[in-house]
Order: sequence, then C-alpha cells, then structure tokens
Amino acid sequence: MSRGYRTSVFRSTALAALAASFVAPAMAAPPRSMGELLAGSAPSDWRTPDPQDTLYLDLESGRVVIELAPGFAPHHVAAIRALARSHFYDGQKITRVQDNFVVQWGDPAAKGVKVPTLAAEFARATTPELPFTALPDRDGYAPVVGFTHGLPAARDPADRTTWLTHCYGTLAVGRDVAADSGSGAELYVVIGHAPRQLDRNATVAGRVLSGMERLAALPRGTGAMGFYEQATEGATIRSLRVAADVPATDRTALEVLRTDTPLFGQLVELRRNRSDEWYKRPAGYIDICSVPLPVRMAERGAS
Amino acid sequence: MSRGYRTSVFRSTALAALAASFVAPAMAAPPRSMGELLAGSAPSDWRTPDPQDTLYLDLESGRVVIELAPGFAPHHVAAIRALARSHFYDGQKITRVQDNFVVQWGDPAAKGVKVPTLAAEFARATTPELPFTALPDRDGYAPVVGFTHGLPAARDPADRTTWLTHCYGTLAVGRDVAADSGSGAELYVVIGHAPRQLDRNATVAGRVLSGMERLAALPRGTGAMGFYEQATEGATIRSLRVAADVPATDRTALEVLRTDTPLFGQLVELRRNRSDEWYKRPAGYIDICSVPLPVRMAERGAS
Repeated sequence: MSRGYRTSVFRSTALAALAASFVAPAMAAPPRSMGELLAGSAPSDWRTPDPQDTLYLDLESGRVVIELAPGFAPHHVAAIRALARSHFYDGQKITRVQDNFVVQWGDPAAKGVKVPTLAAEFARATTPELPFTALPDRDGYAPVVGFTHGLPAARDPADRTTWLTHCYGTLAVGRDVAADSGSGAELYVVIGHAPRQLDRNATVAGRVLSGMERLAALPRGTGAMGFYEQATEGATIRSLRVAADVPATDRTALEVLRTDTPLFGQLVELRRNRSDEWYKRPAGYIDICSVPLPVRMAERGAS
Repeated sequence: MSRGYRTSVFRSTALAALAASFVAPAMAAPPRSMGELLAGSAPSDWRTPDPQDTLYLDLESGRVVIELAPGFAPHHVAAIRALARSHFYDGQKITRVQDNFVVQWGDPAAKGVKVPTLAAEFARATTPELPFTALPDRDGYAPVVGFTHGLPAARDPADRTTWLTHCYGTLAVGRDVAADSGSGAELYVVIGHAPRQLDRNATVAGRVLSGMERLAALPRGTGAMGFYEQATEGATIRSLRVAADVPATDRTALEVLRTDTPLFGQLVELRRNRSDEWYKRPAGYIDICSVPLPVRMAERGAS
C-alpha cells in the first residue's frame, strides 16, 4: 500500500476505502486521486536527483534529504557544498524553530571560520533553456507561477526574471539586513504557511525532499523569533554532507516526480478540482504552494 | 520586551536591533513593524473572547486555547460544548498528526456514546449584521476574502454566502464522506500550509488562539494519512473544557486584536508592504492566511 500521499478524508473509518483506492487502478476509468494517478505513472515520469546537488542533513532523529538549486543560486550552492565538505555544519545545533515560520541552523562565526558573504541571488534571468511549466492559475504575489526542475517558481515577463518561491519545505539562506550579507553559513527551511513575502528578499537554495517532519516537529524555541534561549537546547546536526560524498550503501535513493510531463499536468488538474467523493465542492483553483511535488523511494536493482 | 510577533530578520546578530524596535516607539514616525504598531494600540483595539466560546484543550505539554465560531457553526459549536461538558474528549488521544496538514483528535465511538451527526455548516448567509473587513487583495479561491469577528473568511457576492477559510490554526470538524456525517466528536486543527481546498467542504468551528506549537510540534503519525499506528502513541488529552466552566484562577486571560478597527487596517497594510529595513522588495500583496491575528495576555487587575 502506498503511503504518504496527502488525502483529505478525515474519518479513520474511511481508511479501508482509501487503502483500496491506492491499489493500482484499472486505467479504464480516469484517476480520481493522486494515488491512483501515480500508480499509473511511467518510470520516465520520475527523475533521480543529482548526488552533487543533494544534501543529507543527518539529525539524531534521522535524515533530512535536500535538493539544491544550482540553476538559481549557483554561488550559494557552491558555498554550501564547500561548507559541507569542510564539515562546517557538523556538530552545530538547530538554533531556531519559530512556529508557522522557519527552522534555522548554522552560525557564521562557528569554528573560527570567517565565511565570505555573497552577492544576493534572489532572482535569475529568464532564459530560453530554463524549463518552466506554468500553473494555469493566477497568483497574488507574482505575475506568473509554475514549476522549474521540480521547484515552485515565479516569473515576471516584464523584467524577464524567474525566482523560486517560498513554500513549505523551501531551503533558503539566512542573511543580515544587507542583501549581500548571506553566506550559506546560516540556512533556514520553511515549516509553516508559505511566507511568500520573502520571495525575492532571500536566496532560495533548494527544497526538502524527505524528512520534513524531522524539522517541522522540532520543539519551538522560546526566545524572540523562535531562537532557542540556551545553546544546549537545539537538536544537534550530526553531519550535513553532499550525497555524492556518502558511500553508496548509506545513500537514500529517492526519485522525484518530474514537473515537465503530461502526467504532472494531470496531477495539477486533479488537485485543482478534487473529484474524489469526499469533496463536495472542488476549488477550481490551486495555489503554487499547495501543488504536491511527490517523492518516492527508488526501487533498487533485484537483490 | 514583547515576544511572539513574527518578524523576518534572520540573523541572530540582528536580535539586539530587533529588541530595540519592540520598545514602545515615539509615535512621531509611522510604525514600520507590527511590534511598533501594536505597542501604540489602544485598549479598544483589543477584545476579550467570550468564555462560553472558548475551549481549553489541556495536554500534558500545556494548554491550547481555542475560540469557537458560533456565528458560523452554531449547531456544531453547541455539540462541541456539550461534548466537552460531558467529558467526552477527556482522556482521549490525539489520533492523527499529518505533516503539513492537520492534527486530529476524537473518536465518534468513544465511551460507548453514539454522537449524533449534524447537517453541514460549510457556509452561512451573508447578512447585514455580519461584520466583514475585506482584504484589499484578490484571492484565488474566493471572490472576496477578509475578516469577521477575528477570523479569516471569504464570501461570494453572487450567492450571498460567507464562510471561514482554512488557515494555519483553523479548527474544523472531521467528517466521513457524506457532508452531514460530522458530529463534533472528531476535530482537526490545520498545522501546515493553508489547505484552502477544504473551504466549504468542512465545517469550520473556530481557531487556535494560543498554544499552537503544542499541536504543530507533535510527532507525526507514521500510518496512512498521519494516523498513529498504535493506540498508545498519541498525546493524551487531559481535558477539553469550556473556559466558562473553569475556575477563574485556572483561566488563561487572553485578548485578541479586533479586525474591524483602523489599527487592523494599518496592520494589514504594514504586512502587505513590509517597510522594515530587512525587506528589499515589499510584496504589495498579502494572502488571507498570512495576515497575523495577534493575541496577547490580558493585564490582570492590580494584584
């Protein structure tokens, strides 16, 4: 039985019916749920993240897998990779958990290292080779929203820029007041309602692919802005590594649903207009941060 | 120093400057942050929730305070009050914590009680006496959005209905597939990105005023849809009581910012266009679920 796809049937007594719906459907009838749709997906609907662009944030509770976005924040991504490879983050603490906002870690002054600050990468030029699957729905924060390389994004045709939006699970770079004061030494992940006001105000560096619950369920900090008041409070980062540096046997083999396929278009439409029997009034709309971006464990070769 | 107002300065080194900004400002300059604005609020900008419409969900970790919405779900609110007074929820477990979605509790079959189901209260008639402060911004899910009695809401001028929107902290009624299968015996609170697709598909009964972190940081359930797999797993509900039934000495005295005042309009505008120095590009927009609805401890009389 598939698990982890969000559904909206709230009664535990409906679980049996729901489980039945996850069985691979006879494709004569169009799929009515994401589970049914994904059960009929082809291997080509999925992609494998590049291990050079994948981070493993290992906490005592387990692993958080993050995919980086070098196409949008090349300098910050390079810096984060280099910091990870220097073991900069290892042994540091989660420093901030602000309810309905962000989990944050990293200390620019840690380990006596002076981490260089970088120019902001809040948006990039819209170029022909940049993939972009537009969402059919309008958005309040941007002229156009959609998906690029599996990430929620927005663009402005007027100035020909594209940027990554702040949604649940977005990884971005902490900074001080100056736009170019971030370095990658401080990172945050969104754990609440999408703080879209941060779009184009912070450098988005990627998104969490799995293990979000290990961040989102952390105890909230009781200091101002959710900072922990005691240095001993936060969860410890065992290590933050680039997946490419991790032995194959210790890697987490994930596949991510492509966002440039007909199947993804079907998924968006299924979620714009829920047609399973629980819904009485389909919304006819979906906001960019409500579109699911499914991730699954890759099937390893026959063992 | 005020606490708990969400801000967006990400560097811990900026905390001192931030703390300074929370000091009651000289009102010569217009406020640039919510903290400054609220520091200049008058007592009349705040209201005290009716103890008959307030629930205390007491967990082992502490109290969650919920304000009910009898103006929108009178029959469900009456049922929830009656269930609370019969101690129906006391000793039950949190049964479901689905990451980025909902925390849910209650069992319609608990304690051998057959809780009567109720007709859906998904929306109500828009009547002249219903207060409504419209948000200036458009919304994708509804023709008009705004605030009523301190709750995020939406309305459709075409059919003259108003309903409460699903935002972070919204309390709503679990149901089975049939629209009229809810009873109040199962309740859920939104803990992730606003699931607006649920609007007009579920009866919204109120919102959490304080203690959200006690729900949002609960361990996620590992079963389908975030249900706990073992009956022993979930946090125990010590009691769920109507505040009016609780001795005055054990009440949590809260005040809620009114949503029908000029000050609230200023707050919305401050958040539509962040003008503190951290923001380089104000959004010029805010979605209904991003508007903060501040709550503070009431100052008790001289003791």
